[in-house]
Amino acid sequence: MDMPTPNPQVIARKSELVSRLRGVLPAESVIDDPRETKAYECDALSAYRCPPLCVVLPASTQEVSQIMRICHDMQVPVVPRGAGTSLAGGAMPTADAVILGVAKMNAVLDTNYADRTIRVQTGRTNLSVTGAVENDGFFYAPDPSSQLACAIAGNIAMNSGGAHCLKYGVTTNNLLGVTLVTMTGEVLEIGGAHLDSGGYDLLGLICGSEGQLGVVTEATLRILRKPEGARPILIGFNSNEVAGACVSDIIKAGVLPVAIEFMDRPILEITERHAQAGYPDCEALLIVEVEGSDTEIDAQLAMIKRIARSHNPVELREAANAEEAGRIWLGRKSAFGAVGQVADYMCLDGTIPVSELPRVLKGIEEISARYGLKVGNVFHAGDGNMHPLIMFDANKPGDLEKCEQCGADILRLCVEVGGCLTGEHGVGIEKRDLMGAQFTDADLEAQMQIKDVFDPHWLLNPAKVFPLNVSATRRSPKAA
Amino acid sequence: MDMPTPNPQVIARKSELVSRLRGVLPAESVIDDPRETKAYECDALSAYRCPPLCVVLPASTQEVSQIMRICHDMQVPVVPRGAGTSLAGGAMPTADAVILGVAKMNAVLDTNYADRTIRVQTGRTNLSVTGAVENDGFFYAPDPSSQLACAIAGNIAMNSGGAHCLKYGVTTNNLLGVTLVTMTGEVLEIGGAHLDSGGYDLLGLICGSEGQLGVVTEATLRILRKPEGARPILIGFNSNEVAGACVSDIIKAGVLPVAIEFMDRPILEITERHAQAGYPDCEALLIVEVEGSDTEIDAQLAMIKRIARSHNPVELREAANAEEAGRIWLGRKSAFGAVGQVADYMCLDGTIPVSELPRVLKGIEEISARYGLKVGNVFHAGDGNMHPLIMFDANKPGDLEKCEQCGADILRLCVEVGGCLTGEHGVGIEKRDLMGAQFTDADLEAQMQIKDVFDPHWLLNPAKVFPLNVSATRRSPKAA
Repeated sequence: MDMPTPNPQVIARKSELVSRLRGVLPAESVIDDPRETKAYECDALSAYRCPPLCVVLPASTQEVSQIMRICHDMQVPVVPRGAGTSLAGGAMPTADAVILGVAKMNAVLDTNYADRTIRVQTGRTNLSVTGAVENDGFFYAPDPSSQLACAIAGNIAMNSGGAHCLKYGVTTNNLLGVTLVTMTGEVLEIGGAHLDSGGYDLLGLICGSEGQLGVVTEATLRILRKPEGARPILIGFNSNEVAGACVSDIIKAGVLPVAIEFMDRPILEITERHAQAGYPDCEALLIVEVEGSDTEIDAQLAMIKRIARSHNPVELREAANAEEAGRIWLGRKSAFGAVGQVADYMCLDGTIPVSELPRVLKGIEEISARYGLKVGNVFHAGDGNMHPLIMFDANKPGDLEKCEQCGADILRLCVEVGGCLTGEHGVGIEKRDLMGAQFTDADLEAQMQIKDVFDPHWLLNPAKVFPLNVSATRRSPKAA
Repeated sequence: MDMPTPNPQVIARKSELVSRLRGVLPAESVIDDPRETKAYECDALSAYRCPPLCVVLPASTQEVSQIMRICHDMQVPVVPRGAGTSLAGGAMPTADAVILGVAKMNAVLDTNYADRTIRVQTGRTNLSVTGAVENDGFFYAPDPSSQLACAIAGNIAMNSGGAHCLKYGVTTNNLLGVTLVTMTGEVLEIGGAHLDSGGYDLLGLICGSEGQLGVVTEATLRILRKPEGARPILIGFNSNEVAGACVSDIIKAGVLPVAIEFMDRPILEITERHAQAGYPDCEALLIVEVEGSDTEIDAQLAMIKRIARSHNPVELREAANAEEAGRIWLGRKSAFGAVGQVADYMCLDGTIPVSELPRVLKGIEEISARYGLKVGNVFHAGDGNMHPLIMFDANKPGDLEKCEQCGADILRLCVEVGGCLTGEHGVGIEKRDLMGAQFTDADLEAQMQIKDVFDPHWLLNPAKVFPLNVSATRRSPKAA
């Protein structure tokens, strides 16, 4: 993958920059020792690495504003970072960039059960948002697999989803307002604790903008009442296509499970060795979970079982109690870790209309066979959000490049059938050069002109999202 | 209300403009006879009127593109118009503007039940979208009161809601993709039939942008399975505040009715005379509707009745059959028409956190008493979307101005308690001068810079949304 050239003028002024940052932040909040900045050289897309110029860890909106003023004044690129769990390289630094980490900003500022909202600093982890309200019977719905670690800041930047987003929507559907610090240090309040707002929907625009339009320091999130109960069902099939057709039929029937998860044979084999969840021996497995009262659960599962049976499943197993429910989820929740134990892998995020699942699953098989790479599928099938894991050997020369090409072919297929490059992980560096497969030059120009408004000098996370050659003239350094 | 000064240079070139438009459109699609253009002098905010320069009624995206090219070339303002049902003056012309009406563009382009989508030209009316799929058991969820007449184009421009949006969300939650024609005639495809997308969320930005960023000619909408059944319950209270507290408690309990509608005594009296729905004699009435199977309905209503009883209602009436359900809805659905029979009125759209309902209802009483104007409340209480109807006499000098001031005070109160100026009607001309109560100068500047990107010369619906003095320099005519 091509990487952008850092600006030597910025690097030459590092000591001046660090001393100005120390002027507005406590000493321990500015990290410039290369042994320590190395911890920030990559995020969860660890195939690509580059240590940043320095790292700042502000504790408040006001400190973020002061940092932005200094960086704007000195024309230093800023890469915002949540918890560094991006699978797309969204928080990967360049050598001339300041990493602005929000990890210290993790306070709960307000909880309001009457209006069902919570206001937090965005360094708070996803799961600890639920942690703050669960004793009172509430939860925060979006649940990325990384929810134990990932920060709300990153969830907003990437518009993150999760297994339960089929029913509850992704981040943008659960976000009511944000405090945004612009590249010039200006503090904007966008949205609020109310429905919609007058004027343009800047909140929707900020959500999913990958830290390129401003730094989100605080957020008002919607919280929901915990459902009375939930029950998963496990359905095994003897082909991917049939499992895909079953998902499409469930969606078409208008039932709304809280999750429909899909695992194929390569994933099942690796996961079963690792977690011993007792999954059946089959080509493809669905986990379908429904929520509500016992009566509601029974009614929904009856319809789902009827649809599943019409596709001749090899196994159909309903959880009779909490322990069995836990075992049904055990393998799914261990899947990514299990694959990581046996291979290096790249996790794609292409998203397609649900009715195209059988066709795309077949296409992925063909593409991976062509490259001679093993691909496993474990993903949120209900909303068509696929996660092919392409396995490769990072120590084998040329294997990473082959994996990149295989991934590109799969994502092009997703776009071809009417889908898109990314459902919840974002573009980051990983998919920037594929944006041309999805968008015309005019589309990309319209998006870049929006960035021009918020960040005319392209200092905020500049080498992401857009193909490097397309954004080249905008990114070229201006005189400070 | 101040109105912008039309550009005399544009008016002087009317005949050249009309002849160029006739060069690309069939004769009957260009209207320039003042007797005919008069029909387009206002929308549903009929207190303000101004005939346009001329009217065009294109039949396709391509014709819209050609119109935009001509208007851009001659620097003529364009005001897009759906069905003209805007309550905020969103489609009100200026004397130097071309009205671009999408009414002819009403085709269904594709229905896809497997992925639950429909693609339509945006001149299609809201109700006829459901009409195209209801025989197959589907419906389109957002349901503005004007749904028989209003166009999808206007729904997208204003991010319209409706009584049933508490459960299903507003337009932005049910919109998957659009075809947008920019002011220069460029055709952009935004979004698609898939979840989310890479890059910035331009779809969210376009939805609710009041025809200021481009003309939306086609849209892909989400359609849903019709629920098994629905049942309303009617609950009467002896004070607005208690009814408001009951709504807040229902929301807080985590039940999700499909609608919670609120009517106060002034509205009940007028409506009862007009529709004779048999509503009880009380200060405030709630209609709460739930959906699902009979068992689900019973379970939800049991909880709602328990909450209602804890507030000592004067009446609690559950529909036993379809006829009784119809009677419960009859008065609510006749309310706007009934008020229109007895008075001129202005309908506000302020939206607040639900827990503030009791306080704001009391505040509206105090404000209207101060102005000596009668105000009735009939609105979507579940999502805090209020519709105070301020009644006045258009023939009494000064009464309209008093009504405007009273409305402004009420909307300022909504913003004060953490709400906003508009939930679903949009800003249009009606609320543009109040935008400063909600947004700082920096907020407004950020929004206007977005318009600069899509429409650098401010030709698209230019005198809307932003306070006239704030947008003045941007709107001043440039040399053609």
